[in-house]
Amino acid sequence: MAAAVLSSPLGLIAGSGILPIEIAKSARSKGLKVVTIAHIGETDPRVAEMSEDCLWLKVGQLKRTLKFLKQSQVKQVAFAGAIAKAKLFRNFRPDLKALAILARLAHSGDDAVLRGVTEEIEKAGFEVIGMSELLRESTPSEGLLTLRDFTPQELQDAALGWRAAKALGSLDIGQTVIVRKGVIVAVEALEGTDAAIRRAGEIAGEPPSNSAWLGKVGGALNAWTSATSVMVKLAKPQQDLRIDQPTIGENTIELMHGSGISALLIEAGKTLILHVEQVVALADKYGIAIRAAVDMQNPI
Amino acid sequence: MAAAVLSSPLGLIAGSGILPIEIAKSARSKGLKVVTIAHIGETDPRVAEMSEDCLWLKVGQLKRTLKFLKQSQVKQVAFAGAIAKAKLFRNFRPDLKALAILARLAHSGDDAVLRGVTEEIEKAGFEVIGMSELLRESTPSEGLLTLRDFTPQELQDAALGWRAAKALGSLDIGQTVIVRKGVIVAVEALEGTDAAIRRAGEIAGEPPSNSAWLGKVGGALNAWTSATSVMVKLAKPQQDLRIDQPTIGENTIELMHGSGISALLIEAGKTLILHVEQVVALADKYGIAIRAAVDMQNPI
Repeated sequence: MAAAVLSSPLGLIAGSGILPIEIAKSARSKGLKVVTIAHIGETDPRVAEMSEDCLWLKVGQLKRTLKFLKQSQVKQVAFAGAIAKAKLFRNFRPDLKALAILARLAHSGDDAVLRGVTEEIEKAGFEVIGMSELLRESTPSEGLLTLRDFTPQELQDAALGWRAAKALGSLDIGQTVIVRKGVIVAVEALEGTDAAIRRAGEIAGEPPSNSAWLGKVGGALNAWTSATSVMVKLAKPQQDLRIDQPTIGENTIELMHGSGISALLIEAGKTLILHVEQVVALADKYGIAIRAAVDMQNPI
Repeated sequence: MAAAVLSSPLGLIAGSGILPIEIAKSARSKGLKVVTIAHIGETDPRVAEMSEDCLWLKVGQLKRTLKFLKQSQVKQVAFAGAIAKAKLFRNFRPDLKALAILARLAHSGDDAVLRGVTEEIEKAGFEVIGMSELLRESTPSEGLLTLRDFTPQELQDAALGWRAAKALGSLDIGQTVIVRKGVIVAVEALEGTDAAIRRAGEIAGEPPSNSAWLGKVGGALNAWTSATSVMVKLAKPQQDLRIDQPTIGENTIELMHGSGISALLIEAGKTLILHVEQVVALADKYGIAIRAAVDMQNPI
């Protein structure tokens, strides 16, 4: 997509994590003022310090969101740090405007809910821009990012993970799959990527406990039991990257390392890496390989 | 499949849980003697009390398994209570015979590993029979098992879960999917069904906390936030039901109840229900609906 002409103030619809802070920082470094909708129980309060104005709401208060953006003379809106999807079940206070969307969508996945909210914001006259308009330098194109490349085993596991992640994405299930030696260890649904990584670590992350014994049997067995895991994180085929982009950060690499995951395959041009230099340096320190790929059938 | 003529003694390859005990009990009630291969750290020791003879091995000691079965003059072998798949990574001591299978299979899912072991047992001259030969009465055919039937919402969620579970199964990922109001909450991979149920409960299991407030907005919102979850547990398309059959027990119903899952869809003729009368009675007590279906496109 062509780069948007950015207008000030930027309306920031802030979810959880450090993404809203990164976006606010980046917007300010480009000379834009930022007005923020922060969500109670979700958004890091520090984002308020970087905002011209900040309104705290509960998830689902769409009418007040639109009114605030209008009053602040916002023309462009960016979503950053998606609301933890589980909150849609637990901590959700849709106003009548949000309810109308839900009723229209009837039975739909969380992607559809986000698309509905986006359409409502566009209908009210705002332009929705993607985070990558503000963080373009962190969306890698095809290729190897780290010093170490994938091993043949990791390549095979990555190919399996790619096929599985695309199938899961087309069902609107999740974006992340963790594979170890031909076996799909963990699949992300509503719990999110971090929880899936931790689960993979609990199931298959420990080094083999019987390594003394392994020496006696030799290489073939060692290849079977000492394999590490590969993580594949892709966009869903129908995903609107403006409002919900697969994102990797230093935290992801730390979690991967702690869970025995030795390689990461992301989708070229679609996955956002926050602090890409630091992420790659951290991966290199741990010997983790990172690749971005475009081709579904032949990922690397 | 036609019922096998059962011969004594039955060779029981015992994994974890109560299934081996149930199979041994059932075999003895049919007048068969049972000789058991029990697995250290997996198998309930009580199975030894019901066995003529019981050899304790580590997972993967295939050569000793075959030798023991031959010495015991076994002709038919049944697998019961699959080895926790995660153990293949952690606690696995394949002998050279098992290694040969692994080397031949090279990169394959856990189904393929089980199929390889089965083939080896058949090549050694044994007949592998399914658990349902011994527990036929507990494999429901199409229809409603409980007093309460699925609500329209549960029907829709079950249809989505069926499609997703079949897609996941064809990728050899897992058998179980939990859906709530059009959103796939949890997907089972290597962690097993029980862990997936618990996760669904943590994510979306609590009743809405804002129910007083809900009253003010009314029915549409209530339908959104108060929905419960539906669980779908199916066989994988390529699954060899003789050695690894989807199984439901009272424990499953207790876990579902604790996780806010109100309906269960299983695959007719393929899913084993242990203590079916008790399971259905327990489901009725909790108001849980259970259905068995055969049709992929139109599950109910």
